[in-house]
Amino acid sequence: MSASTENSNPAEIFRKRMREQQELLKLRMKHVKHTVAVISGKGGVGKSTVTVNLAAAFALHGKHVGILDADIHGPSVPRLLGLTGQQVKVGPIGALGMKVVSIDFFLPEEKTPTIWRGPLKMTAIRQFLSDVVWGELDTLFIDLPPGTGDEPLSIAQLLPNIDGVIIVTMPSELSRAVVEKAITFARRVGMPVIGIVENMSGYVCPTCGTKIDIFRSGGGKKMAEETGVPFLGSIPIDPKIGVDSDKGSPFVIEHEDSPAAKAFVEIVKKVEDYLKEKEN
Amino acid sequence: MSASTENSNPAEIFRKRMREQQELLKLRMKHVKHTVAVISGKGGVGKSTVTVNLAAAFALHGKHVGILDADIHGPSVPRLLGLTGQQVKVGPIGALGMKVVSIDFFLPEEKTPTIWRGPLKMTAIRQFLSDVVWGELDTLFIDLPPGTGDEPLSIAQLLPNIDGVIIVTMPSELSRAVVEKAITFARRVGMPVIGIVENMSGYVCPTCGTKIDIFRSGGGKKMAEETGVPFLGSIPIDPKIGVDSDKGSPFVIEHEDSPAAKAFVEIVKKVEDYLKEKEN
Repeated sequence: MSASTENSNPAEIFRKRMREQQELLKLRMKHVKHTVAVISGKGGVGKSTVTVNLAAAFALHGKHVGILDADIHGPSVPRLLGLTGQQVKVGPIGALGMKVVSIDFFLPEEKTPTIWRGPLKMTAIRQFLSDVVWGELDTLFIDLPPGTGDEPLSIAQLLPNIDGVIIVTMPSELSRAVVEKAITFARRVGMPVIGIVENMSGYVCPTCGTKIDIFRSGGGKKMAEETGVPFLGSIPIDPKIGVDSDKGSPFVIEHEDSPAAKAFVEIVKKVEDYLKEKEN
Repeated sequence: MSASTENSNPAEIFRKRMREQQELLKLRMKHVKHTVAVISGKGGVGKSTVTVNLAAAFALHGKHVGILDADIHGPSVPRLLGLTGQQVKVGPIGALGMKVVSIDFFLPEEKTPTIWRGPLKMTAIRQFLSDVVWGELDTLFIDLPPGTGDEPLSIAQLLPNIDGVIIVTMPSELSRAVVEKAITFARRVGMPVIGIVENMSGYVCPTCGTKIDIFRSGGGKKMAEETGVPFLGSIPIDPKIGVDSDKGSPFVIEHEDSPAAKAFVEIVKKVEDYLKEKEN
């Protein structure tokens, strides 16, 4: 009878469920060696492309990798890995055995918007971390939406021992100003900053070879120096990346000889070194 | 004594304040002839640049214009108009007498992040609409952050009579998929869709004249046809736009003879026509 009295209080049921999920989350994360979040202050800087290619590069090096797509309104990871339309309830396996979870897998159609306010988004992220059978992972990459709102705050709260964040930027003044916010954010919520990646840095005309700074270049490096954050590298603009993205295949796999892929390999090495150092 | 009993209840005080603000908001909006929101499913598609240039074009045509920057985490409007660092408590006047309000004006430094969850963001947006002395305006443009979360939901709720939304997209598949969510969102919350603007559509090499589709082109028009939404026009990539943006001056003013500005004038005409038709 006392049990039934306990169960009849909805607030108590909710709190109990939260505690259980928190315990489950801790249990799951015990089998995940490293967690790395990819953030940006501004959207459209290629954050998801960087996440997916980082994960693919780690997997190519023989690591067990997972990707949590924490962008609830604009999930891009499934499309970048050719996994859209896979309405499975347990994270599907992408290229190279990468385990992927995204809100996209739970939507009736790709074009269905998730018209959700903040608290619901935090609940979804908590469930992605606790209810998904991630198994043994070397590294779990988390793709966060731009900004410093509910999603990154939820990750900071749910994963207090996160290894660090990678900040992706584009080489323009406006982007720089916004990305500085991301650095301040990471420091305030106690997430170590692994470094800055400058994406879409200069373009080479395929006809005449002129190097064109469409969005200018060099901002990422300058900003890293000014803020005392490591600079991980620049990735040049390459239309092939867009084509690979639409095809659902990471460019580090599809075009490993391209300047973009070569630049990317250097970035991957720095991230691997960072994580190795954290282990010691 | 009964008054003091009423005032001692914090919940009642809060509800009273909300009702007062809602009344003030209605009063303010009585003097605003048109409200137009600019949205996108994905970030980095140049939404704020479109908003600022639309407003500037309207102002050039002799209209009284306001801009509400509803992007709480990544406010770009002040920088695009050269108004950063203006810590005034009443919206400052930008180029051509445009009234601008942004969270940026209330931050101690530009790089300070607004680490806020949803409810606080809605409160800020409500205050921007109700507490700012907008005065008599022909059109109030609202720059919304990407996605379908708290900020656009708040606008839909606070401005039920909004004239419509303009959806900005980039010509890639990934962007298309995300923008379709924006269309569905607008329809679900009852905001009329004025049309789609395709930004960064093709680039011409300044040395040899080769037209390069960095992000491909044509997606916006195709999507408009498929979804039955008007297509407002394409804006080509132009490095001058980036330079103007960093300088804080709209390109429709700075480079009125550029292909981008000419393309923009056509878009402006369609929006003006839409609003004129709504008046009748």
